[in-house]
This record gives sequence, C-alpha cells and structure tokens, in this order.
Amino acid sequence: MNRRDLLKLSSYAVAAASAPALAQSAPSHAASGSVARWDCLELAFPGPSTGNPFLEVSFTATFRQKNRALTVEGFYDGDGVYKVRFMPDDLGEWSWATASNAPQLNGQAGSFACVAPEAGNPGPVSVRDGYHFAYGDGTPYVECGTTCYAWAFQSEAIERQTIATLTTSPFNKLRMCLFPKWYQHNRKEPPQYPFPRTGEVNDYSTFNAAYFQHFDRLILELRRIGVQADLILFHPYDKWGYQSMPAEVDDRYLRYAIARFSAYRNVWWSLANEFDLMRSKTIADWDRYARILGEYDAFDHLRSIHYSRYPYEYGRGWCTHAGVQDSRMQLGAGWRNDWRKPVVFDECRYEGNIASRWGNLSGDAMTRRFWQAAAQGCYCGHGETYLDADDILWWSHGGVLHGTSPAKIAFLRKLLEETIAIGPGPIGFTNFADDPMGARRANGSVIFYYFDEHQPAEGTFALPEGKIYTAEYIDTLELTRSPLAGEYSGKALVKLPGRPWGSLWFRQKA
Amino acid sequence: MNRRDLLKLSSYAVAAASAPALAQSAPSHAASGSVARWDCLELAFPGPSTGNPFLEVSFTATFRQKNRALTVEGFYDGDGVYKVRFMPDDLGEWSWATASNAPQLNGQAGSFACVAPEAGNPGPVSVRDGYHFAYGDGTPYVECGTTCYAWAFQSEAIERQTIATLTTSPFNKLRMCLFPKWYQHNRKEPPQYPFPRTGEVNDYSTFNAAYFQHFDRLILELRRIGVQADLILFHPYDKWGYQSMPAEVDDRYLRYAIARFSAYRNVWWSLANEFDLMRSKTIADWDRYARILGEYDAFDHLRSIHYSRYPYEYGRGWCTHAGVQDSRMQLGAGWRNDWRKPVVFDECRYEGNIASRWGNLSGDAMTRRFWQAAAQGCYCGHGETYLDADDILWWSHGGVLHGTSPAKIAFLRKLLEETIAIGPGPIGFTNFADDPMGARRANGSVIFYYFDEHQPAEGTFALPEGKIYTAEYIDTLELTRSPLAGEYSGKALVKLPGRPWGSLWFRQKA
Repeated sequence: MNRRDLLKLSSYAVAAASAPALAQSAPSHAASGSVARWDCLELAFPGPSTGNPFLEVSFTATFRQKNRALTVEGFYDGDGVYKVRFMPDDLGEWSWATASNAPQLNGQAGSFACVAPEAGNPGPVSVRDGYHFAYGDGTPYVECGTTCYAWAFQSEAIERQTIATLTTSPFNKLRMCLFPKWYQHNRKEPPQYPFPRTGEVNDYSTFNAAYFQHFDRLILELRRIGVQADLILFHPYDKWGYQSMPAEVDDRYLRYAIARFSAYRNVWWSLANEFDLMRSKTIADWDRYARILGEYDAFDHLRSIHYSRYPYEYGRGWCTHAGVQDSRMQLGAGWRNDWRKPVVFDECRYEGNIASRWGNLSGDAMTRRFWQAAAQGCYCGHGETYLDADDILWWSHGGVLHGTSPAKIAFLRKLLEETIAIGPGPIGFTNFADDPMGARRANGSVIFYYFDEHQPAEGTFALPEGKIYTAEYIDTLELTRSPLAGEYSGKALVKLPGRPWGSLWFRQKA
Repeated sequence: MNRRDLLKLSSYAVAAASAPALAQSAPSHAASGSVARWDCLELAFPGPSTGNPFLEVSFTATFRQKNRALTVEGFYDGDGVYKVRFMPDDLGEWSWATASNAPQLNGQAGSFACVAPEAGNPGPVSVRDGYHFAYGDGTPYVECGTTCYAWAFQSEAIERQTIATLTTSPFNKLRMCLFPKWYQHNRKEPPQYPFPRTGEVNDYSTFNAAYFQHFDRLILELRRIGVQADLILFHPYDKWGYQSMPAEVDDRYLRYAIARFSAYRNVWWSLANEFDLMRSKTIADWDRYARILGEYDAFDHLRSIHYSRYPYEYGRGWCTHAGVQDSRMQLGAGWRNDWRKPVVFDECRYEGNIASRWGNLSGDAMTRRFWQAAAQGCYCGHGETYLDADDILWWSHGGVLHGTSPAKIAFLRKLLEETIAIGPGPIGFTNFADDPMGARRANGSVIFYYFDEHQPAEGTFALPEGKIYTAEYIDTLELTRSPLAGEYSGKALVKLPGRPWGSLWFRQKA
C-alpha cells in the first residue's frame, strides 16, 4: 500500500468509526498497520462518481493469510468513495489486493497485522455442540433475544434510549428489519428510504448510501454493548414495494447488505420475517437468497429464516439454526432432534397488553416460555407490546421496557450461563415428551428440571451413576434460590415445596 | 300382577331402597301401583336357587306403553331372588310381562302408572344441541365432572365422606370403576370381589351379588345428590384378572351391569379407562362391548370410552360423546367439529402435589383447563391428588377435597348455567384456532371470551348486528365480576384491565 492510499484509508476508517452520532465503536487500527481480531477493517478508495457506480463498477478485495484467501465485495458509499470491509478471523499477517473494472480501484494492495482483540471483543457467534452457540473465543453464548423490528426508523433520541435500555437488559440479540415497517402502530414514513424515491416510485438502480450508513452506526452501537444484530432482510409489512422488487434488485440488495455489514462480527442474517406471508416470492426465490448469503458472506455469519403459518424446513443445509415463530413450546425438543441444529423460538408472542393476541402475554407467561425452551435445550425470544401514550412499543420502535419478564429472564440467563460454563462438552438432553419436566445436562455436571404449572411435593430423579450432587430449588417467578440440605446420588428422592413455577438444579460436587 | 307378587315386589322394592347403609333414595312407589317418571321400578320374584342361576336361568321383562315395548334383562340377586329393574320414561299406564326358562319366573305380568316426578328428579342426561347435554325434563346439564376411581372399595366412613364432599362441590358427574384398582396409592385388596375368589382364582361362572349390591347403594346415593355416575366398565390397573377375562365372561359381566344399573337415571357408561393400555383386548372386543351396550341398555344411557395414548375414533356411531384424556386443550374445538359430538376432557391431569406429572397441577392450572374447555364449547373433568398422611387421595379414594380449584370451577359452572339458561336454541361457537380467545354464544344472547394467559388492555369484539349488549369483566381466579359501564353493539371497542386470567361476557339486553 503506498503512503497516499494509506492516508486515505486512515482518514476514512476513522471517519466511519467516529462520525456517527451514536457510535462509539473501536477504530479499526488500520492506520497503524494493525487490526484487532474480529474487528472490522475498512479500506476506502476514491473511485468513479459518474455514471451509475452501483451498476457499472465491479469491485472486490481478496484477503490472504498464508494459503487462505477470502474475497469480499466492496461497495459504493456515495460521494465518490468506495469501501471494502473485512473482519480478520485469525492473528498474524494478512495481505490484500483489490480488483475492479475501474482503473482507480484495481490493483490496490496492502497488508496489516491482525492482533489480539481488546476486552469485550469475544468474536462472532457460531454454532457449538450441535444445539448451542459460542463466541469465536470459545465463550459460550446463551442466546437471549429480543425484538425491535423498526427501531432503525425512529428518532435519534429513541435510538439512544433503545441502546441504553439494552445495555442494562438481559438481551444479547436484537431482531431488526433492514426495510421500514408498515403495520399497526407503524403507520409513518421512515426518515429516509433505502432507494431514492420520487412520489411512489423507487429508483432501484441505486442505493441511498445514507440509509445504510445509518445502519452501520446502529449495528456498531449494538456491537459496542455486546448485542447481536439479527438483520431481517425481507418482510411483508411493507407499503413501499420492497417486498416485491425485481429479482435482480433483491439480489443486488442482498450483496450490498453483505458487503456493508458482514465484517461486523455481531451480524446474524435472517432471510425474512414471516417469509410465507410474502406471496410474491417463491421457494426458488428463497433458495436463491440463501445461496447468495452463502456465496458472498466470507465470514459465515449465522443464517436462518422466520415463518408465520408453516414451519420452514430448517434441516436445509444453508440454515445454521432454526429461528422459529411458534408458541407450541413443547415441540422444541422434537424439532431439535429432527433438525440437529439449535432451535431458537425467535418469536413466541410478546409480553404486553395490546388487543392482538400475539401481543398481550403476561410477563409471567413470557418468562414461562423462556423456561420451557431452556428445559428442552432450546432458546427463546422476547418482545414487548404495552400500549403507550406516544405509541412507542418496544417490539417495533425500541425505547424503554415496561414489563416484568426481563428481570426474570435475566435470572434464567444467569443460571444457564453458570451451567454452560461448567461443562465444556456437549450439552445432552432428555426428551421433553418422555421426561416432560425437562432436563439439561452439561456432561452430567449440571441437571435441571423445570416444573412449569406443576407443583410436586416430592419427586424421584435419576441422577447419573457414580456422581454426587448438591441440589438447589429455584422459584422461577419469585427469583429465589434455596439450597437443599444434603447430597444426592442415584435415584434421588427430593422433597419439594409443592408450588408451581419451580425448578430443581443438581450440580455435581467438585 | 297378582297380590302375592305385588307384596313381594313391594317388600323387595322397599328393601332395595332402604336397606343400604348409605342410600336415602326415594322408594319406587311400585307398591302403590305408581312409579315416578325416571325413577327405578324394581320387581322382585322368587326363583330357582339351585344349579347356577347366572348361567342357567334366562329372565327378561317387557314393558309396554301403547305401541312401545322395551325389554330388559332381569338378574339374579342371590338368595333365590330375581329382579327386574325398569326406568319409565313417559307418563301414563305401563304394563309388563316376564319371560323365563324357569316356570316360576315366566309369564308374570302387571301394570303401573308412571306419574310426574318429584322435585329433584330431572331425568337422565342425554345429548342436546349436538355438543351439549340436558336432563330428560329439558333442563340444561352443564357437565362438571370429577374422578374417584376406586371410591367403591373404601371404608363406609370414607364413602360417606365422599358423598358429603360431593354434596357441597361443583361436581355433577363422578368417574368410578366397577372393578377394583391396583396402582400407586392403591395397593390393597378390595373389601369384596365381583366374582367368588379362592386364593388367586376367580370363579367366573357366577357373580358376587353383595359386591354389586354395594354399587347399587353408591349409585343411588349419587342419584340422591344429583351426581351422574360415570361407570367405568374395564380398566388396566388390575392384579386380579378382570382385565383379561374370557370373552364370554366380559359379555356376561356387561349384561349383568346393564341389568342391574341401567334403570338408574344417573348412570353413564364408560367402556374403559385407558382402553389402549389393555393389551389383551382387541378393537373387535371393544366393538363387541359397544354393541352389547347398545343392544341391552333399554334406556340409551350416555356412552363413551377413555384412552391413554391415542385418541379413540369418537366419530363412531356407538359413542354419544367423546370422553377424552388429553391435556392439549386447544384441540377441543377441532375435535368437536370433527366428531360432531360433545367433547368432555374427562381427564386432563389433576390438581395435586404427588411426584407423577399427571397428578401435580396447581389449582389455577386445573381451573384454567376448565375455562379453556368452556371457551371452546367443550367440558372438562377434575381430579385431585394431594399427598395425604392416610394415603387417601380424592382421585381414587374420595374423602375430602383439599385443593383450590373446586371453588373456582363452581364459579365457572354457575356462569355457564346462567348462559345456557338464556338461550333455548343451539349454542354456536367460533373456532378456537381462528378466534383463539374463545367465544360461546347462546343464539347470540350471550357471548364470552376467555383471555387465558393474555392480558389485553383493550379489544375490539364483533357482536352480532342489530343487538345491544351489556358487558361484564370476570376475573376467573379472583372470582370477581365487574359490570362495565355502557352498552355495546357492532364492532365494540372495550377497555380491559390488562391482567391475565380474565373473561369478558356480553349479554344481550332484554
């Protein structure tokens, strides 16, 4: 890389990191010749600004480390600036070189050192042990998601509030739409549009860079506070035409989103919210989108899809996990077994009090679903829809939380994180249907049962032979933890309080 | 009827009614030449006591009113006494004549007047309006059942206690086994056996009349307090051999039970508890049993069967209603629609605190199931299994109730009885799946919604056009009733408390 390019790189990289009103993300360190592992390296170059850069300019960069090569697409960010983003996933020296049909962008090259990440950067999340998740550094990731579909289209004040709320919430994943939303409680135009728009007409030949720059900032803010951004690429709650764009626009949009966002380690891809309600798309379309994700995302982010009426075939190879919409929590264990993948109940209705049945669960009912999922070795998703004088509902707009479930979900998440930290190996599971109280084991070192609406005054629990356990009774709604006297082994008879909503935890003695 | 027979009739009839320690049933009035409608006329005759009266003596009586003729089988009641029981179902003169291969029992004849029933005798229950029930006099019967499987095999003190408990409970049907039960909490020999028993050997060639006389008394006690006796004819929880008797013994046993009990207006037949766990019986056996019920029961009592693992095909012609064992309450509406019959969740687990998952529902969870059934136009069944120092658990032994659900179920039953009393016509229903809050209509005069774990702060409810309603909010667990101000019509927006476990009732203004 010559000194002139390096200077440009430096200035743009710093601009990307510090200019946003919200973002406090770590700079990429490219200027000093090093990038932290799993951070985003951003290279910026001047290029053609005449004609249609989106359609006419091809631009890629290939990053090499020894014999590995990863190619990412660059993207036009407006104002004559082209960018390439890359997330180095291993320590050491990397080199890069660009290729383009525009001479200015072709044959640029350079190198950088990938250095150890700072604290708070555990890397991207991927599947671990078949049914679970972990960060790149091996730390278990106990998925605990929430939903603010349209938070990217609210005022900056509300966006700041959303980030502040998430910071102290138990939620470590946020489902959010890349397209604006038109639905009940969501009947306003977004501040800007993804494509230039005149009246009711979209100019699909180009992108509105500012629209996507705003998403850069939001995703980086989520990254800063340790929240995964589950980006929903398509959805049916649309009045602008984005649910039924020409196929080549769909594809270009996906590639643009991948080029822009895939170097952010906290990105997950959700092909759709309620794909089966999008009548203008066929299964062949969804298959094509899935292929595009696989081909263009060099970083292999988590990928799934969300349905409304009929479960998707999550056994499909492109899916990394199932992100179901379902309230039939009892199906989780069977699905896990069928699909051999993590099962996340991304949507199982929301805590709230609106008229719609999907949005008026009690806080305890929402909490119960999290426990029912956990007891099957699955994961659950939260949302909140309380009527609000300003019509700001967390489920779509973000803002603040009003409900009672987040504190109770936080309590569960902490218990699960303790559990997973104990056992490095696969987390086994006894089938919910056969053992309907649910159990979860980390190599047999921790076993728990959830009693749900049941209130046994005693129970016999078959513990793995040759191990000695302590026991703790947990009230999942009162959030109390009560160690039980004594030690337990074999077929253990345990006296219980005879109250519903309890959980019993056995932990192997050290 | 000659005077000698009449005297015998009188003395035996009175004996049957007054001798039992428990029974306080009304006498049959046969002595005075009249029988109340739906009461039991019992005719008793001396007959052969040598040989094997059970196998060798055939004995029937035909009862005629104008052109109608109903034939019932008599039965040997021991000590040289043969009985015929009959429940006249219409007012006016009836004549009768016997037929037997024993000359003493053949050609007896007589007549009686069937007179209007006394208060407290509304007649037998049958299906009404497709999905519901009513007594013979037209009074709606809101099924509200409970379960004391083995109460007939407990001490007289507990039997008395059970009757006392039922008297002040909301329950108007009792599921009870005709054979003794061997199962957890039920590991003792019954006081007597249905067949003479020597060691481990049953003499199936005869019946133990005293065993069945005891059931006479219990059924009459239930009749006296207005409780339907849902007699379970076979079940698998057996150590004595009754679940795998020779086919001809099964059939003789059924005919004997029909001859003895079918003239009691409060009898329902349940072919089995958990028929599918009885591995020695085939579907052909169950079909044959069903035919026997149809052929020999002159009074067409309600008939069903109860399963463990797989739902029976309740669409079958012989079933009058579905008596399911299931906790998947949400299936009720669909089943109702499929089978076109009343759906009773006879068993959906029990309130209690024992270790077994089927027996440790919280009281509120039990109550919830009753509401979920009612909101689908179905019915539910109660049971209770609290650990007890004397091991007396209501679900099997009877005794006293300890739980919190009966009072809440009583509250629901009262509401449903108010509802049904309003509308004489069919009670329509909106599908639970499409309108998942549930609704129930009596010709549109009453409509109610159950909110379950949902807590809407408002809702829009589509009321039938051209009618004006008042509204009442009901807390199904706190048992409070709060009239809402104003009148409602058309698409009515209603403000609600935003709490779970609520129900909203619209009643048409007079």
